[in-house]
Amino acid sequence: MKFSTQDLIEGIQSGNKRLIAKAITLVESKNSEHRHQAEDLLKKIMPLTGKSIRVGITGVPGAGKSTFIENFGRLAIANGKKVAVLAIDPSSAINKGSILGDKTRMEELAKEENAFIRPSPSSGFLGGVANTTFETMLICEAAGYDYILIETVGVGQSEVLVSDITDVFLFLKIIGGGDELQGIKRGIMEMVDVIFINKVDDSNLQKAKNTRLELKRALDFLTSKEKDWKVPVLLGSALRNEGLDDVLHKIIEFIDLKKKTGRFDLVRAEQSEKRFEYWVQEYILNMMKRNESLEEAYIHHKKNASALVSNPSTEAKLFVEKFLKKE
Amino acid sequence: MKFSTQDLIEGIQSGNKRLIAKAITLVESKNSEHRHQAEDLLKKIMPLTGKSIRVGITGVPGAGKSTFIENFGRLAIANGKKVAVLAIDPSSAINKGSILGDKTRMEELAKEENAFIRPSPSSGFLGGVANTTFETMLICEAAGYDYILIETVGVGQSEVLVSDITDVFLFLKIIGGGDELQGIKRGIMEMVDVIFINKVDDSNLQKAKNTRLELKRALDFLTSKEKDWKVPVLLGSALRNEGLDDVLHKIIEFIDLKKKTGRFDLVRAEQSEKRFEYWVQEYILNMMKRNESLEEAYIHHKKNASALVSNPSTEAKLFVEKFLKKE
Repeated sequence: MKFSTQDLIEGIQSGNKRLIAKAITLVESKNSEHRHQAEDLLKKIMPLTGKSIRVGITGVPGAGKSTFIENFGRLAIANGKKVAVLAIDPSSAINKGSILGDKTRMEELAKEENAFIRPSPSSGFLGGVANTTFETMLICEAAGYDYILIETVGVGQSEVLVSDITDVFLFLKIIGGGDELQGIKRGIMEMVDVIFINKVDDSNLQKAKNTRLELKRALDFLTSKEKDWKVPVLLGSALRNEGLDDVLHKIIEFIDLKKKTGRFDLVRAEQSEKRFEYWVQEYILNMMKRNESLEEAYIHHKKNASALVSNPSTEAKLFVEKFLKKE
Repeated sequence: MKFSTQDLIEGIQSGNKRLIAKAITLVESKNSEHRHQAEDLLKKIMPLTGKSIRVGITGVPGAGKSTFIENFGRLAIANGKKVAVLAIDPSSAINKGSILGDKTRMEELAKEENAFIRPSPSSGFLGGVANTTFETMLICEAAGYDYILIETVGVGQSEVLVSDITDVFLFLKIIGGGDELQGIKRGIMEMVDVIFINKVDDSNLQKAKNTRLELKRALDFLTSKEKDWKVPVLLGSALRNEGLDDVLHKIIEFIDLKKKTGRFDLVRAEQSEKRFEYWVQEYILNMMKRNESLEEAYIHHKKNASALVSNPSTEAKLFVEKFLKKE
């Protein structure tokens, strides 16, 4: 059964989770007719968006991200807020949980009336890497969610994507020195706004404090994204609900600072420009994909460049000439 | 007076510095006729390229980059090598030196028969940020230079650009802790392959050792680009020619490791793919710039997106539709 744009908008505004999910499926679709309806929908809900706090959350597998999101989300709900949970990466734990048969994952949060959990899409608009999380977020905002928690894993390009669409970036760390950080993507330490060392208890408290000290030393070498903000390193246990209120307070404090300095709006405007550029590229790529010989030409010329048989600008010129003739 | 492509190629091959400079000016030109000749030239010299070691060098203003390059370059020349020095950033010190009236800058190196120094271009192909350093490098390689030293400053996007076209990335540091690093761009610590603490003498040796320790601690939190490579932190004084041979040896060791693991060729192939993508975008942008109404439309729709009055994908769609109609 097909839903009209009006059905979906009314569903979103009344907080109907089934229709919210349908709207998200629509913006994730690569079908060009769906894409058309998606643009129409997004255009109409735009005035309803922008009011949430957008939180990126990352950490290596095993850092306890799902437990953190479950209990942090419940804490926010206990504070009278509505919480949506999204994943930016197809390989993200939100999906893996069920693949691994971990049926209890975020079960408690999922039961909450004021929570909405959306696994990441399995493929993107053009069959590539999924990247409609920004648009999914807009739908959740229109539906009145106050916190959008975007989960990712500490590898690949996904942190940059999360950082490009969120207001605050949270890094979940487990105890230990540098060696345990080998799995962390380069650059991640410089994106974070708040660090939470998870799984701390009496038995490892001293170790946790040492890790905090090491992290603080490392952070001294990096410039914070926001002037006047010293990235806090918090200790706690998501499983035992310890330290989560500190995280919530630090997030609110950080957002307040950004609003006071005008950086909040400024960064969101910059992010929207990036999204614009991203979609211009997506639509042009889409034109190419619809034309098989152009797609082949792109792959061919790119391969010539990478095989070092010809220089990249020559190959680019040859491709663009073909592109102009075909369209 | 105009030079034919053949004149320029012969000039490059015979090491005629005046003609090398002319060829570089050609690839930097935004004139479309020049661009055409530049592509022809680059295509023909391609078989002569790829044999140098491409070294990126960064550090805050005051870290002693010019003195380092001057004496490091002379050391390489004393070892029988030819050295070319380029700058990737229009605001780079190679230009600033003369603006500041520092006439002696790299004077000794400039006198060397086997050195070629090229200031950075003042503006790019499309009037934007200059980014033809990769192509300039190819010309220097065709002219037989063994080391291409690419200088940049520790701010802005230029480090990413340098990192995307070089084999090894060197970071010049001055003594001190975190605070003095405030000027360093986020992410830089994760790009470096070799660190040189400059301006070390007896009076500050202990401080330098402390800085080295702090840097090593910070590095422990970051993943090295190359497996099996621990980023060395070297001490010395470029002015007094101390420690420069250590830097040279570490660079050679690093390149040898990359060649042994196959990463050398692999990374260069990836870099060429990126250059291809860069030029496809440049040429498409160029098409837009040639069409005033399209350029206006791009700015208009991007502004709508950043003003948060409309969502970015809608604006992108509107722009791409105009783009398709015009071309």
